[in-house]
Amino acid sequence: MKERAGKRALAGAVAIAQVGGPTAVINSSLHGFLRELGQHGSEPVVYGIQGGMSGFAEGRFVRLAAGSRTDWLRSMPGAALEAGRKALTEADVEQCVRHLMAHDIRYVSLIGGNGTMWACSRIYRKALEMGYELHVVGIPKTVDNDIMETDHTPGFPSAARFVAHAVRDLAADLSSMRNFEQVRVIETMGRNVGWLTAAAAYFRERSDDAPHALYVPEQAFRMEEMLRRVADVQREIGYCIVVVSEGLKDERGEPIAASGIMNGKVNGQGGKALGGVGSYLASTIGAELGLACRYENLGILQRCASFLVSDTDREEAEAVGQHAARLLADGVTGVMVCIRRTGDRPYRWELGQVPLERVAGIERALDPAYLADGGMDAYREWLQPFMGSGAPYRILFEQIG
Amino acid sequence: MKERAGKRALAGAVAIAQVGGPTAVINSSLHGFLRELGQHGSEPVVYGIQGGMSGFAEGRFVRLAAGSRTDWLRSMPGAALEAGRKALTEADVEQCVRHLMAHDIRYVSLIGGNGTMWACSRIYRKALEMGYELHVVGIPKTVDNDIMETDHTPGFPSAARFVAHAVRDLAADLSSMRNFEQVRVIETMGRNVGWLTAAAAYFRERSDDAPHALYVPEQAFRMEEMLRRVADVQREIGYCIVVVSEGLKDERGEPIAASGIMNGKVNGQGGKALGGVGSYLASTIGAELGLACRYENLGILQRCASFLVSDTDREEAEAVGQHAARLLADGVTGVMVCIRRTGDRPYRWELGQVPLERVAGIERALDPAYLADGGMDAYREWLQPFMGSGAPYRILFEQIG
Repeated sequence: MKERAGKRALAGAVAIAQVGGPTAVINSSLHGFLRELGQHGSEPVVYGIQGGMSGFAEGRFVRLAAGSRTDWLRSMPGAALEAGRKALTEADVEQCVRHLMAHDIRYVSLIGGNGTMWACSRIYRKALEMGYELHVVGIPKTVDNDIMETDHTPGFPSAARFVAHAVRDLAADLSSMRNFEQVRVIETMGRNVGWLTAAAAYFRERSDDAPHALYVPEQAFRMEEMLRRVADVQREIGYCIVVVSEGLKDERGEPIAASGIMNGKVNGQGGKALGGVGSYLASTIGAELGLACRYENLGILQRCASFLVSDTDREEAEAVGQHAARLLADGVTGVMVCIRRTGDRPYRWELGQVPLERVAGIERALDPAYLADGGMDAYREWLQPFMGSGAPYRILFEQIG
Repeated sequence: MKERAGKRALAGAVAIAQVGGPTAVINSSLHGFLRELGQHGSEPVVYGIQGGMSGFAEGRFVRLAAGSRTDWLRSMPGAALEAGRKALTEADVEQCVRHLMAHDIRYVSLIGGNGTMWACSRIYRKALEMGYELHVVGIPKTVDNDIMETDHTPGFPSAARFVAHAVRDLAADLSSMRNFEQVRVIETMGRNVGWLTAAAAYFRERSDDAPHALYVPEQAFRMEEMLRRVADVQREIGYCIVVVSEGLKDERGEPIAASGIMNGKVNGQGGKALGGVGSYLASTIGAELGLACRYENLGILQRCASFLVSDTDREEAEAVGQHAARLLADGVTGVMVCIRRTGDRPYRWELGQVPLERVAGIERALDPAYLADGGMDAYREWLQPFMGSGAPYRILFEQIG
């Protein structure tokens, strides 16, 4: 990272919000932002916006002490300012700008995903339109890794690490219970993209290691193909681990779970399904193949497990927050902070900035190269800086005898 | 632990099995057992019985190398020998003894829960009845902690540690999303006892910290009381974390989830519920209180998460395996190894033995003292040697301002 020549004074108050689903390191970005502001001698006035975009529109602004001791934020999951979800109307956007004007806030950072970057962009343009000088810098955050123009998004590395470890342990467990239970369908987060699901294969070393089948939203899901695959693997090695994205879609682009509910396959009476796509696949495997199959939803721990946070992720999350505060102080506006990978072994990275229009509301799919034959090795190499090493265990009966 | 005076030679082959659901440290017990046998100069013949009790009855015996390098077992969850579940008939028990006779096996250890100790006892008596001299020593193992006559069971400390950390992180996450989602119902393992569920409160410091309500099988569940509690907590602090045991029962002793399905509350058509009790409670909270409520099942990770294993647990699991091998070599039979707590701060423990009849098939409920007013503090004190410290985070907006 380049060092700036000197500290500039801020020409107004600063505000920051955390938007959308939290991550295990979203508070590290808040910490980095506040710490950097605290290094500006002029003691800037800083507001926290509580409750994400809905709190923004409602004017839930609270004074924060820039530069106070917020190290404790680094180990706390969840959004310390409260996050939340809301689709902004045009009237909401104008209301946001009016709240900023009322507090003489000239600098705003929102920590969020591609939808939040769109909100940044709208607020920035609305302020221009209203003749109010405003600096807006977005701070990327999402476990889904679906933001363009950044090597990856803070929050994703820790979530990927959780998924990889969890699937590996669940596979070792199932392997040992195969005479009682043969299949586990594990559902991961990721919304419309498969980055997290694919990370489940990080610890796979041999061709018959789990996971034995991965299904991501980027590829149309075919039930028959999955049933064949599960039956084959179970016949060969006695058990099968399937990992599926929550956002799985069929050949028509329709969500699988919803179609499962609609066509009455989840239960005969067309009742509301309690689980997601994984639950539907597990019951189908049980019914069609006659195998004992359990559904495991990795759930909210994927975005909040403090015990598997990636050190790299925490460091980067703090750095992007810090960088946003520097850019604001430098008078930069209309951009999102991004991470650029500059080396692999050893892993090296630097921070940059990208115009909001190039990321706002645009979804980044799992790199197609990683989905091609042999692509998983390249994906594992890309993931390596985030994962650390697993305990050296193998599912090998032969090693005992 | 007392040291024995000298090493005795074994007068026959040795066999070991892993029975029932695995734990994150069940393989440490296997490692301890094999390592101890390897220290007997006479190179004993050792068999692993694959597939738990069903493998035992079917005669799935494989030769193991006692004293070979099995350190890798210490970090691998799941049962390396394969476990599985089976209810033994009288004919099965006789078949087990005949397999032992066929291999000239005079020493057997089964790693398992109170049901497995019952199997140990039946095999031991059947051998006596058949005039076959056999030494049987049980090795305790279960995440449920439902075995009598031992301070706790290997496997439980690591599972409790996982539950405590997971609930704490899930609470921090929910706290920050309260304007979007207000209630989370988290379901834990534990079968008919509430030890694991109660461990969810380990990190609770203040009265309004999560979890805000715990429901265990030892206390009859009353839906109305829970709904009142959830509504009160949510009104007061904006969100509510409920933790429930999978084995929750109503005032008539009937499982809650099953009654929920039977009376049509899970879905209007009486279809089969896909989730357990937590799913039923979550949908009831949503319907009755009009709050956004999500169901989280902590799932199989509770018994296999290698990344949250308690060091104390791993050490004890290895020691009970080792002690079982020593007892067998000393000619002891008809007992289970137990752990006796001899000090709290610092934590101290020693190994002992208890007649199989005093543990076989008997379920140990959560200590009623821990369920009484103020009992949770005592329970946390008892759990302390297993948990380590959590990261120092608090859910405190005030700390920022």
